Amino acid sequence: MLRYAVDKPGGPVRAIEAEDPPLGPREVDVRVTHCGVCNTDVSLIDDVYGISRFPLVAGHEAVGIVEAFGHEVELTIGQRVGVGAVAGSCQACEWCLSGRQNLCPRKDLTAVRGDRGGFAGVVRAGDWRYVQPIPDALDSAAVAPLLCAGATVFPPLLRHGVRPIDRVAVVGVGGLGHLAIQFAAAWGCHVTAISSTADKETDARRFGAHDVLVGHDPAPGSFDFVLSTVPADLPWNTYADALRPGGTLCLVGVPHEPLSIAPMTLLTGERTITAGNVGTPIEQRAMLEFAARHGIVAQTETYPVARIDEALDRVRQGAARYRVVLEM
Amino acid sequence: MLRYAVDKPGGPVRAIEAEDPPLGPREVDVRVTHCGVCNTDVSLIDDVYGISRFPLVAGHEAVGIVEAFGHEVELTIGQRVGVGAVAGSCQACEWCLSGRQNLCPRKDLTAVRGDRGGFAGVVRAGDWRYVQPIPDALDSAAVAPLLCAGATVFPPLLRHGVRPIDRVAVVGVGGLGHLAIQFAAAWGCHVTAISSTADKETDARRFGAHDVLVGHDPAPGSFDFVLSTVPADLPWNTYADALRPGGTLCLVGVPHEPLSIAPMTLLTGERTITAGNVGTPIEQRAMLEFAARHGIVAQTETYPVARIDEALDRVRQGAARYRVVLEM
Repeated sequence: MLRYAVDKPGGPVRAIEAEDPPLGPREVDVRVTHCGVCNTDVSLIDDVYGISRFPLVAGHEAVGIVEAFGHEVELTIGQRVGVGAVAGSCQACEWCLSGRQNLCPRKDLTAVRGDRGGFAGVVRAGDWRYVQPIPDALDSAAVAPLLCAGATVFPPLLRHGVRPIDRVAVVGVGGLGHLAIQFAAAWGCHVTAISSTADKETDARRFGAHDVLVGHDPAPGSFDFVLSTVPADLPWNTYADALRPGGTLCLVGVPHEPLSIAPMTLLTGERTITAGNVGTPIEQRAMLEFAARHGIVAQTETYPVARIDEALDRVRQGAARYRVVLEM
Repeated sequence: MLRYAVDKPGGPVRAIEAEDPPLGPREVDVRVTHCGVCNTDVSLIDDVYGISRFPLVAGHEAVGIVEAFGHEVELTIGQRVGVGAVAGSCQACEWCLSGRQNLCPRKDLTAVRGDRGGFAGVVRAGDWRYVQPIPDALDSAAVAPLLCAGATVFPPLLRHGVRPIDRVAVVGVGGLGHLAIQFAAAWGCHVTAISSTADKETDARRFGAHDVLVGHDPAPGSFDFVLSTVPADLPWNTYADALRPGGTLCLVGVPHEPLSIAPMTLLTGERTITAGNVGTPIEQRAMLEFAARHGIVAQTETYPVARIDEALDRVRQGAARYRVVLEM
């Protein structure tokens, strides 16, 4: 089947035809109509992590139509679905069996499967239980980024018991951040967007931020929950100190350097530092239902797949406002 | 009334007589029979924090008999009670009014009130709602250290949802740690004691530890909850890495240096770093009931108050096995 592969780090992308083996019992073939481009896709193509296998087919925010599946699958041919960041988990370990599949040590990530990503005519999903039916209310292009970016920023609100009366800060107004602001605002919270880019203030308010902090640090004791979506090395102790008593700082962006936190910042006021990874199947389902109810989608720049190299460059440069999506 | 005061940093202690003003509406005079000696008392006497006011009367783990009280107090003359680390909180802020008095910014600590500590014939408690009735089953000398050390190590089990099926590590087998081991074991958990002192292994097992690690770091992925009771600068990333997925590292000892934590240690497995401070009135009441039910008390070395300087030195040297208590 048609795939958009790169043969060596950095690209370029070329269309290839490859023969697929017979479908496994839980596998699903989805004809892709749209696929988001995540920073992770570009990093894998560029082999930033040193784990990429070439030829590589990236893409893990695919939306499309169910075309075929194995005999254990409970989906419908023709159904519109999403194939996201997680391809599957073992469904046998203590974490999977207790509904915390995000902690499964054998979790299979779509983005690192090699040649099985969503930049393809048809993507083969590894486990139908991770294939998400898309609510009718959500546009295919605009919902695609929810399958990784959304599935990363939404679960922390659930897992850490964020309440609608809480004051929430979202650090970074980008692919993840612009969704996090929308989710936190629809969650009922007071939302402060924190950005280093002055011209994102208007957008941040449009996404639902009540306050925007540009280019300076938050004041001590401001927030019950801080969600950092940026991979930058920020002054983390300042952000921990920006928590109100009992508050939580949750990282979903990954800084390069170790975090340095003063013990007294944690102790006085019992503050917590934690991190989040991509949602379980049920968290993702809840996210999509919540997004449909509140009209939450990504702000996208769409590119026909013929211009995929240009689309990748756009993400590589961090220029997207706010998420690039390929039309297949 | 009789108090045991120091006039300058480092001591010595001398007995003084001082006149008390009339009782405030919520104050309680408790005739002290026993008072634990906490490391904090010695640090205040030695003015380690630079906040001590002299003459200083330390002591914040007092047990005794109610002798008099103000007109709002709902206690009984002759009742056996404890006067612990927290003298009072405002009972008016959002934290107090929502049952999280430990987060009250106006919390009043017995140990830093100056000349109103428990090393006294009679200690005047600031707010009767923080004065804890002592269950009959608990010996006065042995329960005294629960009023600070116990009230520090018990609440994290409650606040962080530690479950009886969890694997818990207690770092440090000292005044706090020897109580934490007992609480975690009675909580139903599998308990590992981690110590730098080989000859504490037998004691740790007697307190309820199932495993003891002496002088080497814990293995990755070992524990659901790690409670660190030591003020030392440990390799915190190793301890974070010793958490199982979803696990929590909680500090109640305060290291000097900032914690340095690799972001990926938190992200993979969604680990959490937090800290705990001394319990609310209701947490302390729950602790004392739990201790009575399970026979949990401190292992003490008792000194008559006439030998108070010797008792303070014992704590100063970190030699106590495991908690020093003065008999008044």
